[in-house]
Amino acid sequence: MIVDCGLYRDGKRSDETLSLGEAYDRAGGSDSFVWVGLHDPSPEEFDDVARQFHLHELAVEDAIKAHQRAKLEIYGDSLFVVLKPARYDDDAEEVALGDIMLFVGERFVVTVRHGELGPLGSVRERLENDPALLARGPIAVLYAVLDRVVDDYLPIATDLDRDVEQVEEDVFSADGGNPTERIYRLKRQVLEFHRATAGLIEPLDLLVRNRVPVGTGPLAEYLRDVQDHARRVDQQVDAHRDLLTSVLQANLAQVGIRQNEDARRISAWVAIAAVPTLVAGIYGMNFDQMPELDWPWGYPLALLLMAGICVGLYVGFRRNGWL
Amino acid sequence: MIVDCGLYRDGKRSDETLSLGEAYDRAGGSDSFVWVGLHDPSPEEFDDVARQFHLHELAVEDAIKAHQRAKLEIYGDSLFVVLKPARYDDDAEEVALGDIMLFVGERFVVTVRHGELGPLGSVRERLENDPALLARGPIAVLYAVLDRVVDDYLPIATDLDRDVEQVEEDVFSADGGNPTERIYRLKRQVLEFHRATAGLIEPLDLLVRNRVPVGTGPLAEYLRDVQDHARRVDQQVDAHRDLLTSVLQANLAQVGIRQNEDARRISAWVAIAAVPTLVAGIYGMNFDQMPELDWPWGYPLALLLMAGICVGLYVGFRRNGWL
Amino acid sequence: MIVDCGLYRDGKRSDETLSLGEAYDRAGGSDSFVWVGLHDPSPEEFDDVARQFHLHELAVEDAIKAHQRAKLEIYGDSLFVVLKPARYDDDAEEVALGDIMLFVGERFVVTVRHGELGPLGSVRERLENDPALLARGPIAVLYAVLDRVVDDYLPIATDLDRDVEQVEEDVFSADGGNPTERIYRLKRQVLEFHRATAGLIEPLDLLVRNRVPVGTGPLAEYLRDVQDHARRVDQQVDAHRDLLTSVLQANLAQVGIRQNEDARRISAWVAIAAVPTLVAGIYGMNFDQMPELDWPWGYPLALLLMAGICVGLYVGFRRNGWL
Amino acid sequence: MIVDCGLYRDGKRSDETLSLGEAYDRAGGSDSFVWVGLHDPSPEEFDDVARQFHLHELAVEDAIKAHQRAKLEIYGDSLFVVLKPARYDDDAEEVALGDIMLFVGERFVVTVRHGELGPLGSVRERLENDPALLARGPIAVLYAVLDRVVDDYLPIATDLDRDVEQVEEDVFSADGGNPTERIYRLKRQVLEFHRATAGLIEPLDLLVRNRVPVGTGPLAEYLRDVQDHARRVDQQVDAHRDLLTSVLQANLAQVGIRQNEDARRISAWVAIAAVPTLVAGIYGMNFDQMPELDWPWGYPLALLLMAGICVGLYVGFRRNGWL
Amino acid sequence: MIVDCGLYRDGKRSDETLSLGEAYDRAGGSDSFVWVGLHDPSPEEFDDVARQFHLHELAVEDAIKAHQRAKLEIYGDSLFVVLKPARYDDDAEEVALGDIMLFVGERFVVTVRHGELGPLGSVRERLENDPALLARGPIAVLYAVLDRVVDDYLPIATDLDRDVEQVEEDVFSADGGNPTERIYRLKRQVLEFHRATAGLIEPLDLLVRNRVPVGTGPLAEYLRDVQDHARRVDQQVDAHRDLLTSVLQANLAQVGIRQNEDARRISAWVAIAAVPTLVAGIYGMNFDQMPELDWPWGYPLALLLMAGICVGLYVGFRRNGWL
Repeated sequence: MIVDCGLYRDGKRSDETLSLGEAYDRAGGSDSFVWVGLHDPSPEEFDDVARQFHLHELAVEDAIKAHQRAKLEIYGDSLFVVLKPARYDDDAEEVALGDIMLFVGERFVVTVRHGELGPLGSVRERLENDPALLARGPIAVLYAVLDRVVDDYLPIATDLDRDVEQVEEDVFSADGGNPTERIYRLKRQVLEFHRATAGLIEPLDLLVRNRVPVGTGPLAEYLRDVQDHARRVDQQVDAHRDLLTSVLQANLAQVGIRQNEDARRISAWVAIAAVPTLVAGIYGMNFDQMPELDWPWGYPLALLLMAGICVGLYVGFRRNGWL
Repeated sequence: MIVDCGLYRDGKRSDETLSLGEAYDRAGGSDSFVWVGLHDPSPEEFDDVARQFHLHELAVEDAIKAHQRAKLEIYGDSLFVVLKPARYDDDAEEVALGDIMLFVGERFVVTVRHGELGPLGSVRERLENDPALLARGPIAVLYAVLDRVVDDYLPIATDLDRDVEQVEEDVFSADGGNPTERIYRLKRQVLEFHRATAGLIEPLDLLVRNRVPVGTGPLAEYLRDVQDHARRVDQQVDAHRDLLTSVLQANLAQVGIRQNEDARRISAWVAIAAVPTLVAGIYGMNFDQMPELDWPWGYPLALLLMAGICVGLYVGFRRNGWL
Repeated sequence: MIVDCGLYRDGKRSDETLSLGEAYDRAGGSDSFVWVGLHDPSPEEFDDVARQFHLHELAVEDAIKAHQRAKLEIYGDSLFVVLKPARYDDDAEEVALGDIMLFVGERFVVTVRHGELGPLGSVRERLENDPALLARGPIAVLYAVLDRVVDDYLPIATDLDRDVEQVEEDVFSADGGNPTERIYRLKRQVLEFHRATAGLIEPLDLLVRNRVPVGTGPLAEYLRDVQDHARRVDQQVDAHRDLLTSVLQANLAQVGIRQNEDARRISAWVAIAAVPTLVAGIYGMNFDQMPELDWPWGYPLALLLMAGICVGLYVGFRRNGWL
Repeated sequence: MIVDCGLYRDGKRSDETLSLGEAYDRAGGSDSFVWVGLHDPSPEEFDDVARQFHLHELAVEDAIKAHQRAKLEIYGDSLFVVLKPARYDDDAEEVALGDIMLFVGERFVVTVRHGELGPLGSVRERLENDPALLARGPIAVLYAVLDRVVDDYLPIATDLDRDVEQVEEDVFSADGGNPTERIYRLKRQVLEFHRATAGLIEPLDLLVRNRVPVGTGPLAEYLRDVQDHARRVDQQVDAHRDLLTSVLQANLAQVGIRQNEDARRISAWVAIAAVPTLVAGIYGMNFDQMPELDWPWGYPLALLLMAGICVGLYVGFRRNGWL
Repeated sequence: MIVDCGLYRDGKRSDETLSLGEAYDRAGGSDSFVWVGLHDPSPEEFDDVARQFHLHELAVEDAIKAHQRAKLEIYGDSLFVVLKPARYDDDAEEVALGDIMLFVGERFVVTVRHGELGPLGSVRERLENDPALLARGPIAVLYAVLDRVVDDYLPIATDLDRDVEQVEEDVFSADGGNPTERIYRLKRQVLEFHRATAGLIEPLDLLVRNRVPVGTGPLAEYLRDVQDHARRVDQQVDAHRDLLTSVLQANLAQVGIRQNEDARRISAWVAIAAVPTLVAGIYGMNFDQMPELDWPWGYPLALLLMAGICVGLYVGFRRNGWL
């Protein structure tokens, strides 16, 4: 679906509603460009766009299908960029990755979004409010999209941080339940998220060092700033991976220790039951001469003895920490 | 066995049935080439081919034996490429790797297949239906084979993905049985598959950067696309390795926790049996004066007491989760 | 908040109290520079400074927010450096990281501190007492700050060292309690500290090799010395990571072994109780002819037998190490 | 001990029996070279050789002592190569490494073997039967030795493969015994073998790229073939390491699971014994009125009850898999 | 403390006893140099030396303090080298690292030793007996010290090898005690030793490739030999790390298995006690008609039955390996 198609001249949007063909023809001068926005385009819808802007067949093929990896490819004198916008659903503890593709040429930019994720609408709005930036042409659109996608990574890293801390608490709290599955699921999410962030740094490097056919001009420093943010997120994600691996191991030790505590508690109770049983066994013996048996208070005394032993053992076990 | 031997001129197959020698002689012009297809060739069968196309002795030696590693080697002005086509048998959860070798010269291409795996037949069919591609000469054949082999990797990665998810479920489900062996076997398959995919990326790099004596010309971008797919598969396989390592560790914790649960369940039943035994012991004592023994309802009351204790303990253990 | 603003000429501080604008105008000659110190600046406070010294918008944005990663960025002919001063709270076993940012130009240096951590005050004092160093201009300030920040890392590495040793003792001592959580927390701190130290080595490399627009001149060797110290700390931190991973694994084995010791101790006591119970059971049998039952000393002898068995078992278990 | 000393001209061995000195003098022309073979040479024996061929003191020192690492060193215009031939003793599951050193000059080659391992004799035989190869001079000898040493690695990799599979079976079979030690020993052997194979690839690279003073000429492709084989072995060995690490972890889980199975089996038997004991205890109580006690068939019925309970529990435990 | 100060001309030591200043003045020609040896120098003692030889302030600072990392730094046209001589105390299983610093200039060499470790005395002796080597100037001293320090690493690697083997035996022997702590301590020592060896290879590379202001001349090959030895040690140390990690994991499995064996042994004894207790309980029942009770041999037969059951169970448990 073609969401929007605008002609920009000197950073300002032309008022006319233009068809694709008209827009492209008008964008001939050096100070104007066309920005076409697509959402889940069908191959047929894309065909028209691809023909107008001479997009490379292979890039088009990638752009139609979702679930690409983050990358930057140079086709002739245009760029094809794939980004993975991310969102963290904190309740389900799941990272969802989307797909944003950009074709960046000298006088046009085509943005494609798959699925619900992707801040393209608000990026266009922001840019239309910042003509100075937009006047720098298609590279400004690329920068603005990159900036937004990477900025949206930051709160996810923070959310993961908090979840890692919660998991740590679960592991080390006394009544922790079994956090193994949660740790594992979290690690899975961190790996998933890592795919989005790690894949970005290399493409950004090409942009920062201006190794692309579309000149980055004065935006190079801004792109470096985006890369710096991506690096920061990536660093945090790496730390999360490391921590979750350690927490999984610590959890193993905690499981062992809790197992031991349970075994000792059980044994303490067994001991508390075994000793009175022995006493009962003794007074159940059939010897002819067992003086206690004849005492009038023998029976209550025996019960008292048993109760006393139980209480004594219980107190002892409390003291050495087994109960 | 020589499966097929065709002379192609301007992307179209010559109708004549030609012997090896004839085909090679006719392929003299710049717009024609010979494509010989072999299957499990015996050294004798290969001899003839090798002599006709001046294939290098060492490459021939490799081509006769299966179980090579994926590689690309330059011999004079021809290429020798080994690919590892893969198939996943989802029931046995086993990755099977085959061997496809290609000799690519200026005016010929020799394809060799070992074992059952390998889509060479359908690749030839596809190419014969695409004269424009085939007209680009032997490099087009190399591209088409690479494209197919790598495209066949994608569903395997997806299958492994699903198996990893199943294994995760097994680990974290209550009645999970023992998924240890399955996890391990899966990891083995992932490592096996990794051998096929990882070994491809480096050779593809040589092709993409056109560091080979056989010019890739306008196909360079198509080869980069194949490499991109190989990278995507490789990335997924890496993630699988990582996940399976973590799942093996999580499984260890789960085993420990299930062990503990069993130990507690056992202990609960022991306790339920031990307390009535103690009561029986008490009323088995031989004291002269044990008033309960003389009560007419003493015995049924004792039985009731025992039953009551059992029920009470059972209910208590249900409540604290031990049963 | 602007903490201090001084004009330095030939390494000596000018006596006059100058406003930002005056200071900058006076610093025109080649032997003088302005040093502005800020603490937790608000965007408004920073605005003025940024305008006076033509600081780059993106660097300013970073400088206002804390929690940056250590880095060195070149903007035109000035440098933007972020450092992470650290402090170790030995009681809480927590590493706290701060933020120090420096803008280093030809004729000015702006230092920014976030939070409480950061030795900027004492660095200025030290420099004002060393006019020879200060006469080398803004790069001398950068060196002095780097030197101090890195020097402050050394005692932290030593503190972590000691804590790692304590944790080792806990793991291998008989009454060790459960050091799992402490090991994990320590590993977390080491990873945190690693972020500060590892991030420094690369930026320092740019300085040492003089790949920056602000000439390091004869200070290059001093900067290499700082880098050497950073490397030493980094090496120690790496060793800590490695050791803590091993200690976590060793702890797991210790947990298992302690579990086994407890299980054996418990079983020994169970055996000590079980055998007299059996003896009591035997003499509780109702056979007509059980000669011991008629012996006058039968009962005391039976009790003695039981006690003897208990003592014998106890001694035996002490000997084989189960008790 | 000097095993053999031959003068080769145009790939054919001269018939004369020559002393070292004579051989060297005769090898003056461009088509002849001397090949001296030594076995466990004493320093004195080596002295003579070293003097004749002007071997470098340091290389000689290395050549006299066994247990070097695989390497290739350039001394002036001659090469010093150390290889580690390997043999796998399948019964002891032990990899034995030997030492072969080669000094390769323009007109001579000196081969040294330490210990029993090393196929130098049969290599000389093969070469003397292949004058075309031998005519290429000393580099042909180096190639032939490399080829043989690396070819001998292949069956070892296969043997290790089979042992890894056996170990896997042990781990996952029900009556597996304790394969921990075998896994560990195997890993040790794999690491040992890795030392031989991994150390070869880098030296071979120097040869393949012809970065050595002794021209490899048309043998470069053959040397690349040797390197390819070494890489294949190395890849397999890497896979073994990875698998053995995983198998060690899987073994841990299996140990835990077997532990649990034993614990449940034990508990089942305890339960089967505990319930009849309780029944016996009940009928051992001394209540005045226990009607069952007076029944004539009371005792056999009680025994039947106990047996019934035992059988019932046994059947139940079989069904839920505890027995 | 200045240990020694000698003037060497053409590899021979001058007989005169010279003060520092005199020595330096005399060492003007191209064939002579001064060698000053210091041990634990105080800053004051060092001052004099530093002034005479124009040593760089930062290098001096490092040289006064022990516990530096191994490194090579270039200051103007002189070198500053830090080495870590090592000694292994086999009883305490502890690696002790020392500090040797060298300042190497065109016409002087200053050697500094901290602590007891360091073979400087014997190196000087060796060199004074080898005038040919010593005539090559200060670089010969550097070579000789490096050679000795690295040669002293070799027996340590062998000692660690033996200790690793002992630890393996402990892990896999039946009565192994608990080798966890020893494994861990050994790993710590290996990491410590690794610091000494790994830090050397890079500085040696600078020397081997002659990237230093002090020409290595014909000693380059000798320095490469030292580097080869350092590499060999480093390779062994890496193997040790790998093995100890695996042994720690194997130990975990062994702990689990031994735990299980103990649990089964305990249970066997419990069973042996439980069955006679049941028999005693049966004959303790109070049924009116229990024919066995009236048999004259009833009691001895019951005892026999119990003993028989115990023996039978014991034999059975021996057979299935539980006892």
